[in-house]
Amino acid sequence: MDRTGLLIILSSPSGAGKSTLARRLMDWDASLRFSVSATTRPPRPGEVDGQHYHFTTPGAFLQMVEQGQMLEYAEVFGNLYGSPRAPVEAAMRDGRDTLFDVDWQGGQQIRASALGGHVVSIFVLPPSLPELERRLRARGQDSDAVIAGRMRKSRDEISHWAEYHYVLVNDDLDETEHRLRAILTAERLRRERQGELGRFVKALMEEET
Amino acid sequence: MDRTGLLIILSSPSGAGKSTLARRLMDWDASLRFSVSATTRPPRPGEVDGQHYHFTTPGAFLQMVEQGQMLEYAEVFGNLYGSPRAPVEAAMRDGRDTLFDVDWQGGQQIRASALGGHVVSIFVLPPSLPELERRLRARGQDSDAVIAGRMRKSRDEISHWAEYHYVLVNDDLDETEHRLRAILTAERLRRERQGELGRFVKALMEEET
Repeated sequence: MDRTGLLIILSSPSGAGKSTLARRLMDWDASLRFSVSATTRPPRPGEVDGQHYHFTTPGAFLQMVEQGQMLEYAEVFGNLYGSPRAPVEAAMRDGRDTLFDVDWQGGQQIRASALGGHVVSIFVLPPSLPELERRLRARGQDSDAVIAGRMRKSRDEISHWAEYHYVLVNDDLDETEHRLRAILTAERLRRERQGELGRFVKALMEEET
Repeated sequence: MDRTGLLIILSSPSGAGKSTLARRLMDWDASLRFSVSATTRPPRPGEVDGQHYHFTTPGAFLQMVEQGQMLEYAEVFGNLYGSPRAPVEAAMRDGRDTLFDVDWQGGQQIRASALGGHVVSIFVLPPSLPELERRLRARGQDSDAVIAGRMRKSRDEISHWAEYHYVLVNDDLDETEHRLRAILTAERLRRERQGELGRFVKALMEEET
């Protein structure tokens, strides 16, 4: 296997279904690796260190940034979030694709990085903004002020939709999952992504018939 | 609908399953239009004019070429084959994709044409050359000499695999059909292929919440 793993970037405003879709893709394809972000924000109830996030201190986070160990990072609502580089590069060498749940800032930095040629970026739009707000309220986690802040951030996020390779409107989770699977299946079939093909065709042409 | 239809080019050596796959794609997606080639070769038993080919005379064929009415054309085994341009342009305007069953010469000419930016090209490889020869013989249509000629042409065709966007090895028809569907589904979700998205996002951002 001399295929290089892809970097699949999934972005969307909060509440558009991105986390559910990411989880479904991971369930569908066991070879897919999820990029667990590092963050300086405190864990929410139920969040597990190393699974949902790598919870870390601002000092440790900045040291990783200074050492070039973050593929991308950004400050959101006063907390730092970043994608550690080493596990992504290890997955790429193993021919495994990595799934990133990052915002437009993360997407821009990964595309602009030395690994940018291996990126497939997907933006998930909500069917409507009132629907998005309804989904945020249905979580029952946040105050009105926090929800208002999230909706402002959502508009900011949506304004970057045109920077992505693929854009999906998530008006039906099953259909959107089906489309995401199709995108991954197709991207892996692109000629330049199939490292072993050259050898296969060479052997094919040398066959006696 | 202001989406422009795609030109889906399917190439492969004869006997690799291309015609079966094209038929299955047409059955799957009623909006897909098959580009019926014009040809100067006589009909084989069971072939219907206007459905399998537009059977035409060399004179009428060359007149279409001179008038720029062929998107591509080539001579194969002494007969002329070509793809009439007008129905393709009509389908594009209607937002319908057109499926082309053409060889590498046709693929090159369509990609190099003014419509080349709308092309998605797919090459289907056989799992092996002895298997390809076995499939050609199983048809029971051709003499040994004709089969030897087809095998030479197959090697010539395969040598052009690296000119295509996607490459599939057809070792299982159902799986290859599934992959072709994924490629069409994904290509239609590419941002630049969704003409109506800009308006959708504009309307989304103007919504009161």
